[in-house]
Parts: sequence; structure tokens; C-alpha cells
Amino acid sequence: MAKWIWYYGDFELYHHRELSLSRVERGKGMPPFWKIYDCHRNAEFGKTVEIMKPERLRTVFDGIGYLTLDGERMRCDKEVTIPAGQHSLIFSVANAAGIPAVWAQGETFGTDETWLCGEGIRSAGNLSKFDTNAGAWDLCDPEERPSDYQLPAEPVEIKSVTPVEGGELIDFGKEVYARLTLEGADPGVPLTLVYGESIPEAMSEEHAVRSIKITPESGNVELKGAACRYVRVLGEQLPEKITAVCELLPLEKRGSFSSEDPQLTKIWNTCEYTLHLNSRLFYLDGIKRDGWVWSGDAYQSYLLNYYCHFDKDIIKRTTLALRGGDPIACHINTILDYSFFWFMGLRDYLGYTGDRSFICEVYDRAKTLMEYCMLREGPEGLVQGLDYDWTFIDWADMRKDGALCAEQMLYCAALESMGLCAEVAGHHEEAVQYAEKAAALRKKITELYWDEEAGAYLTTVVKGEPVKEVRRHQNILAVLLGFAAEDRGKRILANVLENEDIPPITTPYFKLYEMEALCRLGRTEEMISWVQAYWGGMLDLGATTFWEEFDPRMSGDEHLAMYGEPYDKSLCHAWAAGPIYLFGRYLLGAAPTGEGYSTFEVQPALNAGDFAGVVPTPRGDIKVEVKEGRCIVRTSLSGGVFIRGEERYPIIPDTENRF
Amino acid sequence: MAKWIWYYGDFELYHHRELSLSRVERGKGMPPFWKIYDCHRNAEFGKTVEIMKPERLRTVFDGIGYLTLDGERMRCDKEVTIPAGQHSLIFSVANAAGIPAVWAQGETFGTDETWLCGEGIRSAGNLSKFDTNAGAWDLCDPEERPSDYQLPAEPVEIKSVTPVEGGELIDFGKEVYARLTLEGADPGVPLTLVYGESIPEAMSEEHAVRSIKITPESGNVELKGAACRYVRVLGEQLPEKITAVCELLPLEKRGSFSSEDPQLTKIWNTCEYTLHLNSRLFYLDGIKRDGWVWSGDAYQSYLLNYYCHFDKDIIKRTTLALRGGDPIACHINTILDYSFFWFMGLRDYLGYTGDRSFICEVYDRAKTLMEYCMLREGPEGLVQGLDYDWTFIDWADMRKDGALCAEQMLYCAALESMGLCAEVAGHHEEAVQYAEKAAALRKKITELYWDEEAGAYLTTVVKGEPVKEVRRHQNILAVLLGFAAEDRGKRILANVLENEDIPPITTPYFKLYEMEALCRLGRTEEMISWVQAYWGGMLDLGATTFWEEFDPRMSGDEHLAMYGEPYDKSLCHAWAAGPIYLFGRYLLGAAPTGEGYSTFEVQPALNAGDFAGVVPTPRGDIKVEVKEGRCIVRTSLSGGVFIRGEERYPIIPDTENRF
Repeated sequence: MAKWIWYYGDFELYHHRELSLSRVERGKGMPPFWKIYDCHRNAEFGKTVEIMKPERLRTVFDGIGYLTLDGERMRCDKEVTIPAGQHSLIFSVANAAGIPAVWAQGETFGTDETWLCGEGIRSAGNLSKFDTNAGAWDLCDPEERPSDYQLPAEPVEIKSVTPVEGGELIDFGKEVYARLTLEGADPGVPLTLVYGESIPEAMSEEHAVRSIKITPESGNVELKGAACRYVRVLGEQLPEKITAVCELLPLEKRGSFSSEDPQLTKIWNTCEYTLHLNSRLFYLDGIKRDGWVWSGDAYQSYLLNYYCHFDKDIIKRTTLALRGGDPIACHINTILDYSFFWFMGLRDYLGYTGDRSFICEVYDRAKTLMEYCMLREGPEGLVQGLDYDWTFIDWADMRKDGALCAEQMLYCAALESMGLCAEVAGHHEEAVQYAEKAAALRKKITELYWDEEAGAYLTTVVKGEPVKEVRRHQNILAVLLGFAAEDRGKRILANVLENEDIPPITTPYFKLYEMEALCRLGRTEEMISWVQAYWGGMLDLGATTFWEEFDPRMSGDEHLAMYGEPYDKSLCHAWAAGPIYLFGRYLLGAAPTGEGYSTFEVQPALNAGDFAGVVPTPRGDIKVEVKEGRCIVRTSLSGGVFIRGEERYPIIPDTENRF
Repeated sequence: MAKWIWYYGDFELYHHRELSLSRVERGKGMPPFWKIYDCHRNAEFGKTVEIMKPERLRTVFDGIGYLTLDGERMRCDKEVTIPAGQHSLIFSVANAAGIPAVWAQGETFGTDETWLCGEGIRSAGNLSKFDTNAGAWDLCDPEERPSDYQLPAEPVEIKSVTPVEGGELIDFGKEVYARLTLEGADPGVPLTLVYGESIPEAMSEEHAVRSIKITPESGNVELKGAACRYVRVLGEQLPEKITAVCELLPLEKRGSFSSEDPQLTKIWNTCEYTLHLNSRLFYLDGIKRDGWVWSGDAYQSYLLNYYCHFDKDIIKRTTLALRGGDPIACHINTILDYSFFWFMGLRDYLGYTGDRSFICEVYDRAKTLMEYCMLREGPEGLVQGLDYDWTFIDWADMRKDGALCAEQMLYCAALESMGLCAEVAGHHEEAVQYAEKAAALRKKITELYWDEEAGAYLTTVVKGEPVKEVRRHQNILAVLLGFAAEDRGKRILANVLENEDIPPITTPYFKLYEMEALCRLGRTEEMISWVQAYWGGMLDLGATTFWEEFDPRMSGDEHLAMYGEPYDKSLCHAWAAGPIYLFGRYLLGAAPTGEGYSTFEVQPALNAGDFAGVVPTPRGDIKVEVKEGRCIVRTSLSGGVFIRGEERYPIIPDTENRF
């Protein structure tokens, strides 16, 4: 069965462009401030095909195009017959606004990712200049052009309809990404729809992020999808019937978690739903706002994915979308650290999935991005954002000037990732160079930023002088990225993480890393307590998905406000689904030690109550059950090691391993 | 008055994309085989503005956008008030399918090309990272978005309507680019329109390049523009009335030429009309087919322009469109020599217009294109097309393998142009490098390709060995590009140009260069004879514009055929307007010797009959009248020298200079 093919990465660049430019707030389009790359406008696709007898070839273009058969240009808008024998087939395709793509089906062959793609090649040329393999997903329907791709949708029930002044309030009973259909509307009679993640938002036409006015031209109106739990419909004459579907990427819920504490179970399940809603073609930060792809947010979503849906494709799509095109105009999302997280995502991808082919496919793009990053190196080899780069790390009261410790640590991890990728992609010399550069930087960081007196890493070095400021961020990263050999780890725990004088982390974004650092330093119970308080707190307030931010000290509608607007807080935010990762990685305790779980460890939390769950891998599932401090592991995978303290035991496949 | 502004070059890239992808042949879209670049999808525009009192600012976006005023993001879809004082204004604009552009008008300031543009900059940032000045033309109407720009049109009279089977045949009496309006059409009744540059084409629905079927939805239908002299309209019920406008770039006919031979006068005027129809936003090859921008063709159009319309803007637009975006994927039109002509166009532009600012604006793009060209250098420093480059030179029976002499000469001229441009753009060291490289190449060409025995330049060197093939092309270029010091010029004339054993030039494209070479070598009468025979021959056959190709030996409809199709020959082709240049440059004899005619020469043909004409310059016109071997020159320009043989006389401004 033939697939639609395009220039590798074009599908992602095009749909990323579409979503990036579709943010609308209170009726006005809001474009991102980083460069939006686009797909090609034209491309060629070629393959040498050998057939035993003549075949009829059916071709459909997304755009316009023609076929060059053995150097001879021909139209192929109707079926053409390819004679028996060996032939060079090259499709030239252009699309002024969408993705130049082709679907072609013969009897024994069809377009797929084994075809090559190129740009600006004389179509009579041979296949030698073609750049790379074409891009493809499993899009096989010639009637559905890749430019028009829409996520599938499933019906969603309306839980209640309540009359309100001037109309009615629809409640789906939970957060959804709803496409509404209005049936039996009065043509010519205006309607207003106010979407809300909360009732107060839906009740405020002025402040709701999304409120639209329409005047139906016919009785039936299909509206675009939007994030909401509630929709208030207003008008002189309401539609007879409103139905809705919820757009949802089909994902298998391979991972699971349940605890003797039902709230922890509910937290995991609500996290999974939150993540699922934010899993569209790419990982979004939030489905109501921004609805954009942010590299730091996406990096966390990848980690969650590995313990939940284990869907490689959304990670590949997101990675390609974030990388963008060439020449590179700015850091990913303009943020220095977000470029580094992109590389770290590749390292994790390789570790969890073992999919070397994707690493090879993106290697050239990774290399050019790394070259761009290296332009931020000062004479000492330390990176520092230029004045139009955004040195982010976190929304936090900390020095952002000079060469930040946290940026160096992330840069070091990015270089190490590139060392791995280069090796996988067959560039051994480059791999050695990256690795040596990373090792030198690692040594420098360890010496330059560590303050013996504070027993902690300092925030930054300004004009060669370390600044005596201690913050959690660089110390958390030190624990996670290997800058805290045993003694330093303990001191960081005491002097920073458990030191109330150090300003607390206030965002769920960095809180995930702080919790992970605590788990690494043996404070898993603290992580659980935090999860219970923070996520439990949201559940207590009726959350059906988790929020961009939560401060238990607030009350009422205060929880809904953000960025100076009363209802702008996203109530379905991907980075709020962190417990999926924390539970999978540190309660169930499974993680790969070889690429794609070729080898792996299971080191569950044995003093954190009773719980059970499944960790998905590319080779099958790992089932972990902890009860009264003992553990059962079931899996078909070989290569596993069970760890309890200093003890290590082999995990025997296809048996009940009791530890 | 505020102007629409965009990222420098975006207007050209976008509209070039549009026209490149709008070629339709017999109902099917035909995309180019070279890479189509696109404009930005988003960009920022910034300026520091100082105002004495508060001003109301009105803003319109092509796309969506917002304003960042002194680092504070704000909407500006309604009028906003800017307080008195100094302010940083930054507009962020995005456009998913068109040009991100902004028009903003205060009371004392507005958007124009003094604003800076950038990409991927945090909008709160300062102006330091902005790349360059914004692009702008004189588009000042906030209601007309740059993405929707259309050439103006003027009414065109229908000369006759003749009944034909099933409908009628409209004749405009001359070639036009017509937008038809059908009035009083029968809604629902299908109509067929067959466009023809000739009657036979209009009579052939099957073979006409453009034939469309429409079913009017209402009584009035406005059709897109198309090239034609005739339109056959077919249908059960014809529209009551058909009117048409002809799309035409407004151009002043500053140059002129008239001769005692009325046919030469008519040739010049028909050339001017041919060139004018092909002068759209960019110089097209032909208006019926391909309707594309080809660098070699455009280069000739520039030369014609300087002796006729002297419109800098179309040259700038065409130059930017041809250069395309980054990274460079292929040579311009995939043709090695066409990249070189692009640089030569810059040299001529500087010489004729003296406009240094444009050279500065495109210098970076020129440099990266030159870097791309240099990748074609072999170890000897000779360029050679890679297997996916098109080594064109001309449609001719000549060796195209190895390192072609003609390519080296063009490369040398391109390097010399870059030397000039670098100096103008303030890059002295680079200028020296280019000049030295060109000088070394010039020496090598002069030694390596000259064959003393043949008394001519050889076509190519294959694997270090000169191939004993003599063709006109490299010898013509030798004369034009300074590889034929006196003796060699004479030998080339005798051994090649006037040697019937050397295969003749068959395309009007290279014929222009051959004629120019003959003029340079003192054979102006041959040029005139040729023009009389070739262009006169087309006029004798009723041409209202000149053709892509003309072979006097053909008869009847044979003249209309090309590329295996009976009516595919373009009957309005820019490169057929060459006499404008030949007459201006070699009969009237005016040419700049300093940038922008700061100094110039007039060296008219004094033995070629009586004629008179005007040569436009950026500083005013030069009027030349030749009668009975004597010449009168009138101009307001200083710096002129009149040349007759070895004699040189100053031209006194504002008087009647009689020589």
C-alpha cells in the first residue's frame, strides 16, 4: 500500500507552522516571536524501480507535479503505464501553500520512505544528488492530502446543559478539545460561543481566551476545535441541537500505575489524560494557551511518554518541528537552554527506544544546530546568551547575567548527547570531538562553579568572577546530570534542597527536576508527599486535568488567573503531568541501561507503600508490583537487573521474579 | 505617507513563488524544476522614534501581529496613542501564506525603508540584532496588502469579433496580457475559452497552451489574465458582452529610436512593446510560456531596459527574485552560467544606474551565491558543473563536458563584478581577493583555451586536455568580456564569426551577443542587415511582438511550433527585443564609462544611414541624431566624450554638439 511521501521533515514544518500561527486570544491572532520555518515549496522524489511486466501507475499530488520516467517528462494526472524493466522514476511536485507531496501506487510498488527526496535538481538528472530518504507516516489514503491532515475525533458526551441568561451553558464534565456541530441553527441569526476551561471563564465574554461570534449561513455549522470544559452559547435563537467530538491523537495507554492510595492512582490517571490531550501532532504546552510547541516543555513530555504511551512518532514529529529549517535564525523558542534540551531529547530517545535510524536521519540537523549553539561560546569555552537570546532556565529570582552554571551543565549534556548521536550516525571522529569537548567542559564546571564554603554550585560567573549566589536550579541539574559525585550530592541535599533559606522552586516545570533530584538522593517519600499535596490539591478543587501552575495558598477564582488576565491560566498543561515520570522512573523504578532496554534495571521504591504498574518498552512491558516492601517483576524482556540498595539480581524473563 | 514594509526581499520571493507556480499548460500545472524559495512566515520591524507630542498610530498588518512599545507588548488593531518622547517600536508580524508586512501611520512618522527588519528576535529585545533595512516599494494604500499586489491594467479594445463554429473569435489586433470580463453570461451554462497568440492556436482546444472551461455562477465573470492576441469563446449561449483590460507595469518610454528606414523604426517600437509586455513584477522570458524568470534571459532584459525604460525597480525586483533564499539548493534556474549572469547583472546595474545602495543591500546575498559557485571549482581553479547542474551556455551542438571555456569566461566576469561590488559595499579586502582571483583566472583562460593553430578559443578542456573544437560561443564571449586583445579579435572575426564552417548561432538569445561582438569588431552593418532580415522577417509575417525563435526558411504554421507542440512557441519573448540594446549601444552609441553616467561616451555609427534617438540615463537624457555621416548630441549631462575613430571630443552640456 503506497504512502504519501514528502521531503523529509516537511510534514512537521508545515503543520508546526500552521499551529504556531493559529493562536488566537480574545479574537486576535498572536504569532510567536521566534522564527517560523516552513516546508519546501517544491521537491523531487525518485526511485529506481524494476518490474517484471507493465504496470498501471496511479498518482495523486498534494499540489501540482509531473513524472520524469527515464529522463522523459510526462504527465501522470491520469493513470500511466510503466513498461516492464528497470526504470528511474522521478516525481517533481510543487505546492504554493501546503506540503509538496505525492502518492503513487503501481501494482507491485508504491511511494514510501524508501524513495529519495531532493530539491532543485534537474528532473532529468540521476538519483545521485537526492539528499535523503523521503518522509512518510502511515498516510495511505490518496483522497486525504497531507496538508489537510486532521487528528481523528471521537464523540464526546455533553454531561449537562444549564440555562443561563441569554442562552445555555454546556458542560462536558471534563476538559476536552471539542469540535462542536450546531444543528438546526437559524440562518442569519447571530450566535456567540464562549469557551471556558472553568465556569467563570465561560461566563466572561470579555476575558475568556476564546469567544467567537458566528452568523450561520445554513442550519448546520461545524466549528473548529478548541480547548474547554464548558461552552456558553448565546443568541436570540439557539440551535436545536449541539453535538461535539473530541480531537485526540490515537495513543495506546501502555503504561499504568495504581496505588493503595486511591488519590495517587487518580493522579496518575489524570496526568495521563492531561498528557494525552496535549499530545496532538506535536507536544503542546497547553491546549488552551499557548498551544505552541516549547522545547523545554516537550522534553518533559518525552520523558512522560516513555512511561505511558511509548509513542515514538510524536517525539519524532516534535523533534523535527522544533528543529525547524535552515538557516537557523534563533535558538529554539529563542531560548538558549531550550536548544540544549533538544539535544538531550535525542539522547533519551536513543536510550528509551533504541531507534538508531531516527538519530541518523536528524544527525545533520543536529550538527548544524550544535554549530549554532557553539557561536555562544566565549573565549573560556563557556556559553552565554547574546542579548537577543533568551536565557531562561526558569521563572525564578536568580541572576541571569554572565555564564550561568545551569546553562553550562545543559550545554555539557547536549555535547555528550551529540557524541552519542555522532557515533550512532557513523561519524566516529566527530563523536570523539564532541566527547572531548564535553569532558573538558565538565571538568571546568566542576571546578569553577562549586563553592566549597556554600557546599553548593553557584549561579553564575560574571566577567570571570563567580557570583556568590546559590539557587536550587544549578544544584538540581548537578544531581541529574552527574555533577554531584557522592559527597557533593549529600551536601547539595543539605545545603540547598533541604535548606529553606534557598528560594523555593515555584513552577511545576522545574519542580519535576527537583523531585527527580530528591528521588536520586534517596528522598522518594518527599516526592510522594509533594505529589499528594500539589496534585491532590488540584483534584480536591475538581480538576479533571492538571494546571499550568497551582498555589495551594490561593482561593477561588485566583486559581484561574495568570499573566495579568483573570482566566488565562492553562488548566490542561503538559508539564503538570510529571508524576507519570516520577512514578514510573522512581516508584516502579524501571529504566533502560542499554539502548532501547537491551539492558535495563528495576529499582523500585520499597518503602513507599503498596503499588503496582506497567512500564512499556519497545520490546514488551515490564510489570512491577510492590507490596509490603517486597516486589514482583514480570516481563518477557531479557537483560534486566533488579536493584535493592547495593544488591543486584538478574530478572528472569517470562517468570514471576519475586524480590 | 507610510509605506508597506516587509523583510528585505520578501515581496520579491513571495511574488516570484506565486508566478513560478502559476504556469499552466493545457489545464495542468507545471512547476519549475529548480528550488522555489519563499518569503518569511514572520518577521519583526523596529525603529526608535522621537515625537514631540502624543500621536495616534494607525496600523494594518498583512497577516497578524502586535506592537511592542518600549518592551511592552500591546495590541494595535485599533488606533493606539504613542506618548511624547523617545520610544522603541517593534512590530511582530506573521503571515501563514503571504508576506508578513506592516503599514503604520502616525502623525509625524510612518513605516518606510528606514525601519529595520529582523527574524526570530525576542520582541522585547533592542534593535541591535535587526538584520537590515526593511524592504518597501511605493505601496502606500493600507487597504491593498502587498500579498495581493496586482499589476495595474488599462482597457484594451477588441478590434474584431468573428463568428466561428460554436462561438466567436475575438481579435485584439495585437498581443496583449488580457483579463477578460464576461457580462451577461448565462449562469450554469458552460463556456470554453481558447486563448491564442495566433489564430491556429485559438482554433485548437487540444493544443492551445491555455484553454479553460467555466460554468458562470452569475451573469458577470472576471477571468485571470493571460497572454493572447485571439480568444475563441464557445458555448450554447455566449455572454452578451466581453470586455478586457491589459495588465501592464507602468513604464515610461524614455528611450526612443527612429531611422530613415521605417522598418528599423518599427522594429525598435515593436521590440519596446515586446519588452514591456514581458516586464511584469519581474522580467519574464515570455508571457505565454514559460512565464518564468530565467537569469540569462533577464540579464538581456536589463541591458534593453537601460536603453528604453530605464526602470531600476524591475531590475532590483528581478535580481532579488532570482537570487532566492538560503540555504542555496541549486544554481539559478539550476544553470551554472545563469548564476554567473546574475553577478554580471550587478556590474551593469552599477555602471548604468550608479545606485550603490542596492549593491550594498544585496552584497551578502551575492557573497553567499559566489561561495556556492566556488564549490564548482576543480583543483585547477576552473569551474565545472556537477552532474545535477545544468551546463547550458546555449542550445547548440557543442561539447558540454569538461571545463567549458565559456563558463570560465563568465565566471571570471562574475568574479570581477564581485570585486566591484565588494569595494562598493565597503569590503576592501574581499574586493582585492575577488580581483586577484579573477586576474589569475583571466590569465589562465587566455593561455589554456586559445588555440594558435585555429586562431580561436576552444570549447572545453576535458581531464586537463584542450578539445580541438571551435564554436562561436566562447569566441563571442571573448570579444565581449575582454579576452580578445586586438590581434585576437581580428583573428576571431576571420576564423570564427565570419567563417561559415563554424556552426551558426541558432537562438536569438546568443544571437544578441554575436551581433554585439560584430559591432565591437566594427561590423555594425552586418548587425543591421541581420536585424532587417530577422526582425523584419517577423514583421512581414504580421508579428505585433517578437518571437522566441524565427527561422525564415519555415513557412505557415511551422513558425508556431516548438518543443514538439504545434503552437507552443512564444510569440512575445523578451530576448527577441535585442535591437533596443543593439541600436542604443551601437547605433546611437551611448554608454556609461563612470558609474551612473558620471562620465560617458557617445560613439555612434556614422556609416549606417540616418537615424536619431534618445538614450536615458539617471541624470537625464542623451539625444543623438545622425545624418549623412554627421552627428548632433544634446544632453544636460556633463562628463561626456564623443568618439569618432581615434578622435575624442568633449560633449558640452545644454548645447547642440555637432560632430
